[in-house]
Amino acid sequence: MRSTIIHGPGDVRLETVADPAIAAPTDAIVRVIRTCVCGSDLWAYRGTEPTDQPHPIGHEFIGVVEETGTEVQGVGVGDFVIAPFANSDGTCANCTNGIYTSCTRGGFWGGLNRAGEQLGGAQAEFVRVPYADGTLVGLPEQPEPDTYASLLTLTDVMGTGHHAAVMANVSPGSTVVVVGDGAVGLCAVIAAKRLGAERIIAMSRHETRQSLAREFGATDVVAERGKEGVAHVKDLIGGGADCALECVGMKDSMSQALASLRPGGHLGFVGVPAGAPELPAGAIFSKNLRIGGGVAPVRGYITELLTDVTTGGINPGKVFDSTMKLDEVGEAYRAMDTRSAIKVMLQV
Amino acid sequence: MRSTIIHGPGDVRLETVADPAIAAPTDAIVRVIRTCVCGSDLWAYRGTEPTDQPHPIGHEFIGVVEETGTEVQGVGVGDFVIAPFANSDGTCANCTNGIYTSCTRGGFWGGLNRAGEQLGGAQAEFVRVPYADGTLVGLPEQPEPDTYASLLTLTDVMGTGHHAAVMANVSPGSTVVVVGDGAVGLCAVIAAKRLGAERIIAMSRHETRQSLAREFGATDVVAERGKEGVAHVKDLIGGGADCALECVGMKDSMSQALASLRPGGHLGFVGVPAGAPELPAGAIFSKNLRIGGGVAPVRGYITELLTDVTTGGINPGKVFDSTMKLDEVGEAYRAMDTRSAIKVMLQV
Repeated sequence: MRSTIIHGPGDVRLETVADPAIAAPTDAIVRVIRTCVCGSDLWAYRGTEPTDQPHPIGHEFIGVVEETGTEVQGVGVGDFVIAPFANSDGTCANCTNGIYTSCTRGGFWGGLNRAGEQLGGAQAEFVRVPYADGTLVGLPEQPEPDTYASLLTLTDVMGTGHHAAVMANVSPGSTVVVVGDGAVGLCAVIAAKRLGAERIIAMSRHETRQSLAREFGATDVVAERGKEGVAHVKDLIGGGADCALECVGMKDSMSQALASLRPGGHLGFVGVPAGAPELPAGAIFSKNLRIGGGVAPVRGYITELLTDVTTGGINPGKVFDSTMKLDEVGEAYRAMDTRSAIKVMLQV
Repeated sequence: MRSTIIHGPGDVRLETVADPAIAAPTDAIVRVIRTCVCGSDLWAYRGTEPTDQPHPIGHEFIGVVEETGTEVQGVGVGDFVIAPFANSDGTCANCTNGIYTSCTRGGFWGGLNRAGEQLGGAQAEFVRVPYADGTLVGLPEQPEPDTYASLLTLTDVMGTGHHAAVMANVSPGSTVVVVGDGAVGLCAVIAAKRLGAERIIAMSRHETRQSLAREFGATDVVAERGKEGVAHVKDLIGGGADCALECVGMKDSMSQALASLRPGGHLGFVGVPAGAPELPAGAIFSKNLRIGGGVAPVRGYITELLTDVTTGGINPGKVFDSTMKLDEVGEAYRAMDTRSAIKVMLQV
């Protein structure tokens, strides 16, 4: 089969590799229908994260079950499935606590799982899925192709935006600031609206992203950054927001989000921390803030969000402003890297 | 009247100053019955926090209302009152949100309030209380003197320990680690038990504090610190605690608390951050932790905790292992500074 392999900065190649095969009775093989490139794939593509040796890449996919091990019960051959960006057994203490991304056996597609196995990458034709029952969510019927884009967001960006909103305690009537206008930030706007936020301020300087944010439910857009951005937020909603959703992971965006909060406000942060930013304990302490964040355990959110996707209540698939073929994967990375696309979907 | 004035490191003096008088119709004058020395008073006493000019000190007191301004309705002359460590108007947006310590007009005893007035210190015979209705909590009847110690803890340490437990989401069945065996840490043990924690691990190396922690509800005591401390905690409760209560404010104690948590765990931190420790975003992110902390808005907790004190359900006054007269205030600071006393109560 063909699988995307990263060799180093700027160097992703679609290569022919061995077809994956069932290795354990709890495995399934999934034929990938749609995959995509994630903002976090760019850390390796840009060299921010080192690539010590070539490895498969990509962690978001939807597809059809091709084969199952003898112990798989939750999904069957031919089922259309959503695969969250992390593999999880569904039974360990961390999965039981809802933190699927800290599964004691699972891991991330393209890397080693905690049980020590190399996992396949999602930017490929097939993926072997260990712990299929704990990982895959099957759809009751085959979806229409025009829902693929939104279904694909449930593997990562929509679940991650939702996690930011959950960690930030967004509830009916909340005032919310969303920092970050990438796919996750835009999905966080959807999530905030879905959870009943009354006021949603999207921080964005890019016109197309601003209009998508408004379409998704942002009531206001603030283009300024830094102190001017905070001042504008406070002009709009007085003493600061109830909730801030940090969807970037940089020091400046974190400061922006924290400074936008009112005393007693909540920060949800889901941007993968880049350059190990630290949270200022003194600033948090003086305002009695609550902070929560992490690698979104999206497996736990798929069922809830899927209902809204299938009824058309939310349409997060609009974050894909570009669609390419799998063999254009190199071009897809370049489009994401240069921000000429918000997010590129790949047809397999 | 006599009031304690700090002049610089190691230099607190009981001095004769003008009696306070009603200055606004919302003021009350309270005759102090009991006050005490707080761990946070030691920041100034030790010079960690500079004393630019001599000022009154002390922020914990209970007493009797001596006089009220014309607009005070909640308390009357002769009422026995509990004064939280912060002055608050009870009506601004932050008070309405329950963050009384961020009141837009109030402030801390001994310092300037946000309205610009110098507030008196609590280690004194009388205190003028601006915004008396928003600040003081009156008791329905005169309490017995043997409850004074516990009532006095409601002004700060018991409310602060409770805040740590609330911010850490302690709930029935929780496993809890309490870092810090000062008066706040010991009160946090009481708070965790009161909120239904099933397992409470007190981190303490001091025998008398260990036994008080056990008396207050600690099921286990861990004397080790650092990696050994974390390993011992995990020996006791597997993958880590549901909740960690940080009651010190140092970098090491914060690391200890964070490392003791399971993925998805909650940290409540109430130790005044010393030396501006920072919270590691990467470590929080990788474990999906939730962090909350700050200057405890104890005004909002007094009524709830008072019920348990008056029925004898909790007895936090035991943290006072020493009682002195107000004119021994210098000796009280020395006892706290050398840790020869957990907390010293002052009879006025």
